Amino acid sequence: MRVVDLIIKKKLGQELTKEEIHFLIDGYVKDEIPDYQISALLMAIAINGLTEQEQFFLTFEMLNSGDQIDLSSVEGIKADKHSTGGVGDKTTLVVAPLVASCGVKMAKMSGRGLGHTGGTLDKLEAIPNFRIALTDKEFLNQVRDISIAVVGQTGEIAPADKKLYALRDVTGTVESIGLIASSIMSKKLASGASHILLDVKVGDGAFMKDLNEARKLADAMVKIGNFAGKKVVAMLTDMDQPLGIAVGNSIEVIEAIETLKGNGPEDFNTLCIELASELLLMTEVSNTKEEAVKLVKEKINNGEALDKLRQMIRYQSGDERVIDDYSLFPSAKSIITIQSDVEGYVEKINTLEIGRAAMLLGAGRSNKDDEIDLAVGVKVFKKVGDKVNLGDVIAEIHANEKNIDVAIETIKAAYKISSQEVRKNQIILDIVS
Amino acid sequence: MRVVDLIIKKKLGQELTKEEIHFLIDGYVKDEIPDYQISALLMAIAINGLTEQEQFFLTFEMLNSGDQIDLSSVEGIKADKHSTGGVGDKTTLVVAPLVASCGVKMAKMSGRGLGHTGGTLDKLEAIPNFRIALTDKEFLNQVRDISIAVVGQTGEIAPADKKLYALRDVTGTVESIGLIASSIMSKKLASGASHILLDVKVGDGAFMKDLNEARKLADAMVKIGNFAGKKVVAMLTDMDQPLGIAVGNSIEVIEAIETLKGNGPEDFNTLCIELASELLLMTEVSNTKEEAVKLVKEKINNGEALDKLRQMIRYQSGDERVIDDYSLFPSAKSIITIQSDVEGYVEKINTLEIGRAAMLLGAGRSNKDDEIDLAVGVKVFKKVGDKVNLGDVIAEIHANEKNIDVAIETIKAAYKISSQEVRKNQIILDIVS
Repeated sequence: MRVVDLIIKKKLGQELTKEEIHFLIDGYVKDEIPDYQISALLMAIAINGLTEQEQFFLTFEMLNSGDQIDLSSVEGIKADKHSTGGVGDKTTLVVAPLVASCGVKMAKMSGRGLGHTGGTLDKLEAIPNFRIALTDKEFLNQVRDISIAVVGQTGEIAPADKKLYALRDVTGTVESIGLIASSIMSKKLASGASHILLDVKVGDGAFMKDLNEARKLADAMVKIGNFAGKKVVAMLTDMDQPLGIAVGNSIEVIEAIETLKGNGPEDFNTLCIELASELLLMTEVSNTKEEAVKLVKEKINNGEALDKLRQMIRYQSGDERVIDDYSLFPSAKSIITIQSDVEGYVEKINTLEIGRAAMLLGAGRSNKDDEIDLAVGVKVFKKVGDKVNLGDVIAEIHANEKNIDVAIETIKAAYKISSQEVRKNQIILDIVS
Repeated sequence: MRVVDLIIKKKLGQELTKEEIHFLIDGYVKDEIPDYQISALLMAIAINGLTEQEQFFLTFEMLNSGDQIDLSSVEGIKADKHSTGGVGDKTTLVVAPLVASCGVKMAKMSGRGLGHTGGTLDKLEAIPNFRIALTDKEFLNQVRDISIAVVGQTGEIAPADKKLYALRDVTGTVESIGLIASSIMSKKLASGASHILLDVKVGDGAFMKDLNEARKLADAMVKIGNFAGKKVVAMLTDMDQPLGIAVGNSIEVIEAIETLKGNGPEDFNTLCIELASELLLMTEVSNTKEEAVKLVKEKINNGEALDKLRQMIRYQSGDERVIDDYSLFPSAKSIITIQSDVEGYVEKINTLEIGRAAMLLGAGRSNKDDEIDLAVGVKVFKKVGDKVNLGDVIAEIHANEKNIDVAIETIKAAYKISSQEVRKNQIILDIVS
């Protein structure tokens, strides 16, 4: 087998076999095939696409290049949930405790963030003393005991994907449904869960801007998961404005706690209930959607979901008092409100610009090694469709010294106010299973 | 300007500007842009193509990356001819003396060969003591004195093309009309000629297998040349069987000499007369094709073309007695004839297999550093359309020790004999100007 012949095959739009994909990925991980050949292959794939079969084989090749979590010692149904990422996305902090409080095991590995805010792990570190690095034994014991753990990656998950992604990033080959689907699923399949719910964000604040493209990605990921014998559902959800109100780290954890207390912002609250109830339906804890929604709401109302989060914080050495005393979170020196100087309806919020404002304040990393300021961030009080009167507070920033003026200007510029009434965004756009 | 943005632009099929192409090629030559980014770009180009404008700019970028021959000190019309290469192609050895004997200056740089036989330079080295490495001064003086010189490359011609070609070769991106046209023309424009005749070979023994594709390539090259202010014509000529009879080094030079003496094989003789007369027409030495053909034939009949070759050999320190005494050429130990064991008409000769047989005998290099055996080769006496009787000699090999049996088998297998009459191949397929 010659690498160049396989590249030409893909250039001509032909299908690579399982053996050929193995030869290419294995050779690349072992440094036997140089970057310049794989980048040509990736471009051919980015333009000509991957068939379903090729996506399956690529996913398994990347999955098998690294470690996989063995959850077989944990009894019960093991579920996982993954979001493709967006601005203000603190969903895991609500959905995982909700579902775990219904008896489903949520053994979740999360990541750090690059961009507007930190990832779930960064956010959890806003809780004083919270440990994200557990040993495998601690991790499994905790899931067995209390049905929930959210930790950093243990072992090396899909190193082939990591190496390929780094190359895609610098060769203009990131955007490819087949490559994205295989990349995400190789990591999800490594988590050991039997039921996987994918939250595919769609909109100008997400990686997928277009509903049809997002649907294709969702469909591809569901098929790969099914091929691996997993139950997979994908929900397409709105990212045409920031999710909820808070965009930051501390302030997002607080919003998550408030949501578990029943006081969540409308869009975020709806999303969490929808995702959690879908997980209950998938795992057959509930028989109907109505029943599932009812159970989820019950777990919020009776405080059991919040208790689940409290238990998790305690097990992971965090200060559980944060749940009742938000002053224990890192907090910013100043809170500056932004008022509207026009009257009308919010027509659009440039989501990435809100994310950028949060990052400028220090909430996110622009480079991998940047330090995050857990205290700072942005709150967007007025969302698409909301009526805005002259002088209304539309947003506020939680800031330390950094970039205050530019952040305020960025947020102001991100808001587009219309004189005419505007329809509110729908949070759930579609479900693919 | 970011490399990755330009790669994405090309991936989306958009047109790169002159400045962008400069940035990419210049950065690549200076090792500021890594192979893995350029190979992704090349794949995007290979799939999505290059516009005419992009081809112009790429050609000039590659041309300007290296040295160019300055022929301004040579008076008269300076012409060049280039073949895209095939099996048995000794055309330069006939056409250059023919055209030079009509007063056109042929200052030609040739290359060595990789594959079935050597290149023109290798073939010329079959003439004892022939020098292919002249100084610039010797080269220009010779062209001024006798209107002809065929030498190896002096200086560094289009190093950007060289570097890109090496990368294309290992990344499956060789086959691309725009890249091939730019590559060839960047080197041709460096030769300093004002009139360029391109011999684009078409058929299963050539790089371009398909007439339509070859026509596109010819058209692209003519347009680039015209854009550079040169008169360029491309002839599409047959390579569905070896050209002439001889495939080797010594034996091809002998066949060229025989052709200048008026005894050339029919197809090769026709091709040389067509190419030479086209050059006379292009350079306005002749006013009509008929006049040009007449002049060319006259130069063969009166021995002036042969004298021109003799002069060139003398000027380049070769032993000019070879023209009358072929025993001075390196000759093979054995000549083995191959007879037909069937009766019928030659329907097809697998051209690349004939080339491979010659290479197996030692006539060509399979690796860049291989030594060529100038004495060996193959002669194909029966061509497509020829009647073959039982026991007729269809071919012979000129062999030293190496690979005799396998060469014979290869040649036998290359011949396809039909019981029905077969039409002869046409040598000139089309002219693009």
